[in-house]
Amino acid sequence: MRKHYPNFDNLHITSANIAEHTAQLNALSAIDLADVITGRPIDEQILIFNAIAEDNAVRTFAYLPLKVQKEMMTALPCPRLSPLLNALSPDDRTALLEELPKNIVNQLLKYLTPEERAISIRLLGYPKNSIGRLMTPDYIAIHLDWTVKQVLDYVRLKGKDSETISMIYAVDDQGLLVDDFRIRQFLLASLETKVSDFADRQFVALNVQEDQKKAVIIFRKYGRVALPVVDDQGLLLGIVTFDDIMHTAMEEDTEDMQKSGGVLALKEPYMDISFLNLMRKRVGWLVVLFLGEMLTASAMGYFQDEIAKAVVLALFIPLIVSSGGNAGSQATSLIIRALALGEVKLKDWWRIMRREIYSGLFLGVVLGTVGFFRVAIWGLFSNIYGTHPMLIACTIFLSLIGVVLWGTLSGSMLPLILKRLGFDPAVSSAPFVATLVDVTGLVIYFSIALFVLQGTLL
Amino acid sequence: MRKHYPNFDNLHITSANIAEHTAQLNALSAIDLADVITGRPIDEQILIFNAIAEDNAVRTFAYLPLKVQKEMMTALPCPRLSPLLNALSPDDRTALLEELPKNIVNQLLKYLTPEERAISIRLLGYPKNSIGRLMTPDYIAIHLDWTVKQVLDYVRLKGKDSETISMIYAVDDQGLLVDDFRIRQFLLASLETKVSDFADRQFVALNVQEDQKKAVIIFRKYGRVALPVVDDQGLLLGIVTFDDIMHTAMEEDTEDMQKSGGVLALKEPYMDISFLNLMRKRVGWLVVLFLGEMLTASAMGYFQDEIAKAVVLALFIPLIVSSGGNAGSQATSLIIRALALGEVKLKDWWRIMRREIYSGLFLGVVLGTVGFFRVAIWGLFSNIYGTHPMLIACTIFLSLIGVVLWGTLSGSMLPLILKRLGFDPAVSSAPFVATLVDVTGLVIYFSIALFVLQGTLL
Repeated sequence: MRKHYPNFDNLHITSANIAEHTAQLNALSAIDLADVITGRPIDEQILIFNAIAEDNAVRTFAYLPLKVQKEMMTALPCPRLSPLLNALSPDDRTALLEELPKNIVNQLLKYLTPEERAISIRLLGYPKNSIGRLMTPDYIAIHLDWTVKQVLDYVRLKGKDSETISMIYAVDDQGLLVDDFRIRQFLLASLETKVSDFADRQFVALNVQEDQKKAVIIFRKYGRVALPVVDDQGLLLGIVTFDDIMHTAMEEDTEDMQKSGGVLALKEPYMDISFLNLMRKRVGWLVVLFLGEMLTASAMGYFQDEIAKAVVLALFIPLIVSSGGNAGSQATSLIIRALALGEVKLKDWWRIMRREIYSGLFLGVVLGTVGFFRVAIWGLFSNIYGTHPMLIACTIFLSLIGVVLWGTLSGSMLPLILKRLGFDPAVSSAPFVATLVDVTGLVIYFSIALFVLQGTLL
Repeated sequence: MRKHYPNFDNLHITSANIAEHTAQLNALSAIDLADVITGRPIDEQILIFNAIAEDNAVRTFAYLPLKVQKEMMTALPCPRLSPLLNALSPDDRTALLEELPKNIVNQLLKYLTPEERAISIRLLGYPKNSIGRLMTPDYIAIHLDWTVKQVLDYVRLKGKDSETISMIYAVDDQGLLVDDFRIRQFLLASLETKVSDFADRQFVALNVQEDQKKAVIIFRKYGRVALPVVDDQGLLLGIVTFDDIMHTAMEEDTEDMQKSGGVLALKEPYMDISFLNLMRKRVGWLVVLFLGEMLTASAMGYFQDEIAKAVVLALFIPLIVSSGGNAGSQATSLIIRALALGEVKLKDWWRIMRREIYSGLFLGVVLGTVGFFRVAIWGLFSNIYGTHPMLIACTIFLSLIGVVLWGTLSGSMLPLILKRLGFDPAVSSAPFVATLVDVTGLVIYFSIALFVLQGTLL
């Protein structure tokens, strides 16, 4: 539901027709203009960008996707870059500069005013994926001894440069954060009230060095529009706003989901990423999994004699090992997500393990029973499973319990072990767990077969 | 980084010691109190809840997780429910009532004031997962012919009941939405300015009937604190705020991730869900996949003679079929996520298919080559692969290309097909695709083996 505007979707913009559309383009809001520009070839983008009024262009630039901003940084003539970069809010500028190669960043920093440059250099100094990288220093800080009128006057004066005026922060003389307020508290109070009258000196703040994932969890919990960022001493350094957090949360979830499928995080939309890059993100894990899976051939080589004696055993190999892999995929995706949401912690490992042992036994018995009857009934009415169908059925029953239990256990413990070792738990993807369980599942299957069938088939 | 408060984490609250802690508890903020209450047995929760001051209890209730709210609804005496329910904001109340059985909802509706009851009945009337269910009617609506002073006075009057005052909406005499403003626009303007002077009559709005997933995408795009909700005629019905959207986005992503592992959406945290419920969410898909996987046993039964003649073929079964499954898992998780983010649409199917055909060929050739050399080299230096190692190596090479290509294609097309048929694309989980590819992969493998090895081994 938007105000209607002329549809530029199917309009090819050229240097010949740009003049007749300029007025219409200039009438669009910055968000709509960003929409019109995105998805076109770079030369059309530059044509439109050069045609619209300077202040419109500056505002529109802020709404362009990172990828388009990045392209424009290299395609636009240098004199145009300065106003665009200076007008970006510091947090958005950090996000853009993060994406560019170091030598270009150093170039671009020169186009910033000394003040903005100092801010950008400071923000880029925080570790990658730290809250500092999401921060903007454009916030409103007041003192507890002010009156509501003083606060509102100050907001009127400073509000234009602030990222948000929904939250107002109080600091002491040393700049230490002492309280946070919603703007509504001031709007609804009488003008003479002292700020200290409704200060509760309670606040939630983020630490500048902490991981952005932590920020996502805290934002979800408190439902604030913005949160203040402090250093270890409690000095107020900046704020993080919910829109950056929503973006970070989406990126984290996208990475986790891609990893869950055994793909490295793409960092770009599926349709935008180049074919070579897409292959680079996929082929690595696929080869690693393939090499791991080669162990199944070795394991089966070891049991070659048994297979030759009882070919019937081979028939159930995919059924048995994939059941373990499926049970493992379930467990690993549950635990990875619960870890990401902070629902479970490393110290819960024993509770999780106990739960998954019961789960594995339950699920294994269910699948084992289905498998048992499938083989027993088929075996009774045909001789497809040879002379000892009931023994085969027992082998299937016991193997499924063993393999499903093992799959469930590995799937649930692997993310915890990875996290304990400092790796990303999302690496224990469904294909990774399935491969692990394939190899061990074969060993479990043939060991049980040897045990049950010794003296009869083997 | 919170203001320090006495640590209640390890303190067991009983009717004997509650009195000595009441003062400390009452001094906590509602969010902290909610923290202290959450995670305790229900009887301790009720003890604390009954001990703290009434207004504190009412505010704290709003911050409790849904699960705890739900438990309290059944554990608290009826007279206590009325203030709690009436004080909840309409959107949070909808979220709670959605979770409760219909007969209890009807009971609870009686405790609401007529006004709040009417609101709740209306909101519950919107379809599940529609934007209407996230909506609150507590917003500030102004008219374009007002002055800034009139607006601010109105905010001061009505702001207390409004879910947010960051966004102010302008409606015409019929109640149709005509513009949106940020509160900062009024705070930074002089008091005599007319609203119409800075109206641009452009706005973004959500349709009340649309899916909540749509709202998540639009919020991410526009980075607003709140968005207005209208009906098909453009009548302003309410607003949706970013905190509800963050919550919805998190739930959607959690469901997608759980489905990607072949689990039904849990709807509760992993640690909270009962064992039986957890099994119910897992066993269904596992059995379905198991039944599907049984087709592998049938397929292999069909090729039993070939296996008996060339046992060496059996050795590579897990390797071949799992490579197809892994390639399929990669493709399906990429496409499911791209669909969820709106990066790809159904109409892109042909571009996706072309891309995945190239991907499948590329990845298949890489894996095929690794497999070829593994078998060829091993076969040259030992006689583990019998008398025709090069023919076996060729079979492996060709099968891997076929299986990986097929896995990639099915993995990428399945989510699109499911979506086209009106199902949730996330159902095409990694285990689902792997199972599908296992069965067909066997057929591909043995067909190629028959073709290559006919006249020699077979």
